[in-house]
Amino acid sequence: MNKMRKIQGGVCASAGFVAGAAGCGIKTGTITRDDLAIVFSESAATTAAATFTTNKVKAAPVRISAEHLRAGRARAVVLNSGNANACTGPTGLADARAMASATAKALGVKSQQVLICSTGRIGVPMPMEAVLRGISGVKLNRAGAGKAARAIMTSDTFAKEIALEVTTHDGKFRIGGMAKGAGMIDPNMATMLCLVTTDAIVPAEALRKALKDSVEDSFNRITIDGDMSTNDTVILLANGESGISPSPAIFRSALDFINRELARMIVKDGEGVSRFVEVEVRRAASKADARRAAEAIANSTLVKCAWAGGDPNWGRILDAVGYSGAKMKESATDIFYDALPVAINGTVSKTPVKKLRQVAAKKAFRVTVDLKLGKPSHVVWTTDLTEEYVRLNLGE
Amino acid sequence: MNKMRKIQGGVCASAGFVAGAAGCGIKTGTITRDDLAIVFSESAATTAAATFTTNKVKAAPVRISAEHLRAGRARAVVLNSGNANACTGPTGLADARAMASATAKALGVKSQQVLICSTGRIGVPMPMEAVLRGISGVKLNRAGAGKAARAIMTSDTFAKEIALEVTTHDGKFRIGGMAKGAGMIDPNMATMLCLVTTDAIVPAEALRKALKDSVEDSFNRITIDGDMSTNDTVILLANGESGISPSPAIFRSALDFINRELARMIVKDGEGVSRFVEVEVRRAASKADARRAAEAIANSTLVKCAWAGGDPNWGRILDAVGYSGAKMKESATDIFYDALPVAINGTVSKTPVKKLRQVAAKKAFRVTVDLKLGKPSHVVWTTDLTEEYVRLNLGE
Repeated sequence: MNKMRKIQGGVCASAGFVAGAAGCGIKTGTITRDDLAIVFSESAATTAAATFTTNKVKAAPVRISAEHLRAGRARAVVLNSGNANACTGPTGLADARAMASATAKALGVKSQQVLICSTGRIGVPMPMEAVLRGISGVKLNRAGAGKAARAIMTSDTFAKEIALEVTTHDGKFRIGGMAKGAGMIDPNMATMLCLVTTDAIVPAEALRKALKDSVEDSFNRITIDGDMSTNDTVILLANGESGISPSPAIFRSALDFINRELARMIVKDGEGVSRFVEVEVRRAASKADARRAAEAIANSTLVKCAWAGGDPNWGRILDAVGYSGAKMKESATDIFYDALPVAINGTVSKTPVKKLRQVAAKKAFRVTVDLKLGKPSHVVWTTDLTEEYVRLNLGE
Repeated sequence: MNKMRKIQGGVCASAGFVAGAAGCGIKTGTITRDDLAIVFSESAATTAAATFTTNKVKAAPVRISAEHLRAGRARAVVLNSGNANACTGPTGLADARAMASATAKALGVKSQQVLICSTGRIGVPMPMEAVLRGISGVKLNRAGAGKAARAIMTSDTFAKEIALEVTTHDGKFRIGGMAKGAGMIDPNMATMLCLVTTDAIVPAEALRKALKDSVEDSFNRITIDGDMSTNDTVILLANGESGISPSPAIFRSALDFINRELARMIVKDGEGVSRFVEVEVRRAASKADARRAAEAIANSTLVKCAWAGGDPNWGRILDAVGYSGAKMKESATDIFYDALPVAINGTVSKTPVKKLRQVAAKKAFRVTVDLKLGKPSHVVWTTDLTEEYVRLNLGE
């Protein structure tokens, strides 16, 4: 009998984790808020796993973290907003290494046990003096999760935290996470960062597999503008402090819950977003086709503009499915807004337009495309595209 | 010794072609402008070729035109704005056929010799009574090209026409074209339509090949919002009235000139567009990679927003190249705005930002990405993404 219960505490909900933050003035040179955070596992037995951006342009912290993670162990993560340390060449690599060593020194661990996450402006060198001063000034404690979650915000409008207590046959374990948003958060680069901690006992290899599969079903299902950052990172630390070894299935369902909730928060907090849309493509000829079609809809500028206008558009949706590369038969395709059919067999339905408009005007709704070709389906979470989004991303 | 000279006359610049237009009130039921056009070749020897949208959702006129074109012959094209006759099921197919037969009857030719192009709202049945009345009312003459070009406009702000007189060793031939714009022209669907006529002698098979290759180097290089319409059509008619059989190379260069000029006009007239950007990716590892990288840049929402703001952004460009799938080495990639380097070997250049901003603030500029991996390059023509674009595409 397993039970999951939402609890407070974010990344410090899991036993044996402490966190804290400091202000360094990384972006502007003036300290106005916390912009550097450290999360630390007090147990030497901690295992670690991470997934990084698949962009060929990888920021320095991504490269160094991947290197440090090779042994499947890490006990601390140092995170900052204000500067992504991306496109910064050899200096950037040296700076990321220096951030890890300074953090390691402050915590009394090895550099290789520290991972680094940066988000913010790109192509600008890290103000290392301020960063190193910040690292030595961070006070870590069990109540610091919220402070850490706020320190990594860029244009996020709310801090993203979640935690669960999971009751298994053998006892309870905890899992908690924090994230910062995607979708052109900063004037120069969108970045999604996420850190999940657990006090369950999970060996490094099992942790890696669980994270990889879970990210596939959570963060890899969200899209705001179709762009992919150079810094995207999801880290999972397990320190075993609960003494519980959950079954892979139980651990996976708890991890999925955390990751999906954080992913949904990121989408809802996307820049200039006015609607949250769940897109499901059903009964595609293959799993890959279901995904292709769902992503084509979710990334279509025209579809997203229609949603911004509260228009229950189906022509642009059918059009996107048509060019997605997925197998489809126009004359067999149905499209729904929530439960209401807007198109049946490729042509307009009899649903009164007024009713459809009521759905498309909501803050959150679901679009379903039924291809009637096979069994596979795929769901993605996305947003509309607003004038506000463009305004926020006009650049310098 | 060959010479190309720009001349007036659009699709009627070529000898033996007549055109005309009529108002039917297709979109609203009220006649306020011409919205139907016919272009006709007086010669029975006319050959024809066309390229159609590769979207799996194809509008009825696309399906019927492809069917009629199987023999490589066609003498007339009937075109309308206001209704795309897309996603209209069996009724739509019957309506497209009826438009062809009515046009054929009026011209004294067979239905199979008539091609159909429609653009406008989708999912709405064609108002056939009005359309058929319009077809019987069109007056064709040698001066009708401009009227026809205006009749197919939707939200285009200017009619798109161009013509050339080409002098060869053996004598002169002419080639002329008209087009309507892409990039969410209509509240419901973007459509690019283009009709090119020539009085050169070109056998059907050679005509097909010339058109296919030329479209690849012109219309297939433009992107405004990355969406692909259900109605996109480019038609080429050759009636041989000049008595000249140009070499394939000469014909191709004249056709390329026409198609590229029309393609550029379409991009410049995209909805809400404030900048025209030529993107070139040079020295890629392969031709396919050059294209992938150029298209990823041109379709990146974030890159396009930066351009709208006059921001000489390079991080978003490097990011787009990184996720494009093209082989690239961050530390070897250079990026230029016109001739000014903005990034050298993956990090910021020494060019003063003020100078770069002057380029990015222009109405038209060029972005070059040098991958330094091989020889192939690829050029695409695109635009920025403005608040105005979003506003125009909010839907109903």
